[in-house]
Amino acid sequence: MMIGEVVGSVVASRKDEQLEQMKLLVVRVRTHTNEDTDAYVVAVDSVQAGPGDVVLYATGSSARQTELTNGKPCDAVIMAIVDSWDIDGTNVYEKWK
Amino acid sequence: MMIGEVVGSVVASRKDEQLEQMKLLVVRVRTHTNEDTDAYVVAVDSVQAGPGDVVLYATGSSARQTELTNGKPCDAVIMAIVDSWDIDGTNVYEKWK
Amino acid sequence: MMIGEVVGSVVASRKDEQLEQMKLLVVRVRTHTNEDTDAYVVAVDSVQAGPGDVVLYATGSSARQTELTNGKPCDAVIMAIVDSWDIDGTNVYEKWK
Amino acid sequence: MMIGEVVGSVVASRKDEQLEQMKLLVVRVRTHTNEDTDAYVVAVDSVQAGPGDVVLYATGSSARQTELTNGKPCDAVIMAIVDSWDIDGTNVYEKWK
Amino acid sequence: MMIGEVVGSVVASRKDEQLEQMKLLVVRVRTHTNEDTDAYVVAVDSVQAGPGDVVLYATGSSARQTELTNGKPCDAVIMAIVDSWDIDGTNVYEKWK
Repeated sequence: MMIGEVVGSVVASRKDEQLEQMKLLVVRVRTHTNEDTDAYVVAVDSVQAGPGDVVLYATGSSARQTELTNGKPCDAVIMAIVDSWDIDGTNVYEKWK
Repeated sequence: MMIGEVVGSVVASRKDEQLEQMKLLVVRVRTHTNEDTDAYVVAVDSVQAGPGDVVLYATGSSARQTELTNGKPCDAVIMAIVDSWDIDGTNVYEKWK
Repeated sequence: MMIGEVVGSVVASRKDEQLEQMKLLVVRVRTHTNEDTDAYVVAVDSVQAGPGDVVLYATGSSARQTELTNGKPCDAVIMAIVDSWDIDGTNVYEKWK
Repeated sequence: MMIGEVVGSVVASRKDEQLEQMKLLVVRVRTHTNEDTDAYVVAVDSVQAGPGDVVLYATGSSARQTELTNGKPCDAVIMAIVDSWDIDGTNVYEKWK
Repeated sequence: MMIGEVVGSVVASRKDEQLEQMKLLVVRVRTHTNEDTDAYVVAVDSVQAGPGDVVLYATGSSARQTELTNGKPCDAVIMAIVDSWDIDGTNVYEKWK
């Protein structure tokens, strides 16, 4: 999994019918020390994430192991909202700060 | 998934027979802020996309989860045509503009 | 899928027995505008490709979806020989030119 | 697999229910000569690893082949704690040194 | 598949039990013209490879398609020892030279 921030969402009216009703979020990847990068992924949201949330996402076939994405043409899923993380014993992100 | 623009198509008369009749499109990857990159992928089209369309594509085994691509040697599929997306509350792409 | 040119082949007498009789070709990746890159992959050939052929190859589990590679420890397969492709309405490669 | 050092952990109270009780560790990737890189991954721990441990992790569908991660939306797992490794006959890492 | 040289091995006494008895080798990636790179992977050996051998390795789910690695948390396997390869009609590596 990688850590990223939800920075936007994608609207797509014409799409594979298995993806109807799915929220497609743009996740911008963070480094392990919580800095922005230019990498991103568009991920299906399985945990009611919203703009500004820092999240964990899984890619590849693992992205299809949620109830929502099972068997669907989806290669990235947000499967957790991050509360905090630390590196070398120091907190680098805290949701409620 | 990643966002890209359909910039061309590939003709291949000699190919795995499971790929007969499939449209093979060249998709040039966009950044999350809608800039061109030099990265690309050749993807099977499952949503009747055409030149100039901005699309979402899925890769890996997830690219085989459409009716069209199921069980086939295809590692990238266009599964949505993008209408618009926003980043940090600002629209960065709008199909009908 | 990505586009590449067959630039060589690999001889390997000691290998997993499931790979006996398979042609292992070195494919050098091309950009979408048909320029050489330094990236490469060694792929199993499923379409009788030869040196100088420009081909499409699939990677990952999708590389095992041909009759030849099914169930085998192969993560890249050549599944089409490219006749031509165009970018932005302009032909950038033509096999018979 | 790649080699990395466990440098932190992620707290995520809202997550896919299949991930309840799983330890999510931040692994910073090492080069083959045991130097730090800026690449990282968040991996599920299946071997009771802790901060400072140098570990092996597997990604993709292979990350779901442990008893702990089977069928779960997890694309990286720590499956070994490294005791030592050598390059060109020279020890480059030794856990107990 | 990619080409690499076996440059070392990893000792890991605490590991997923499915990996007991497996030889974990450090493979340093070669370019298609047989130059060293700084990329590497730790791969399970399925063909009795040893230090200095130039090998082919497969990654992802394909790495689990050998008798040895089937169903195991292993994302890279050495599945062939390279005898030789040529690029543009010129030999660039020969094991017995």
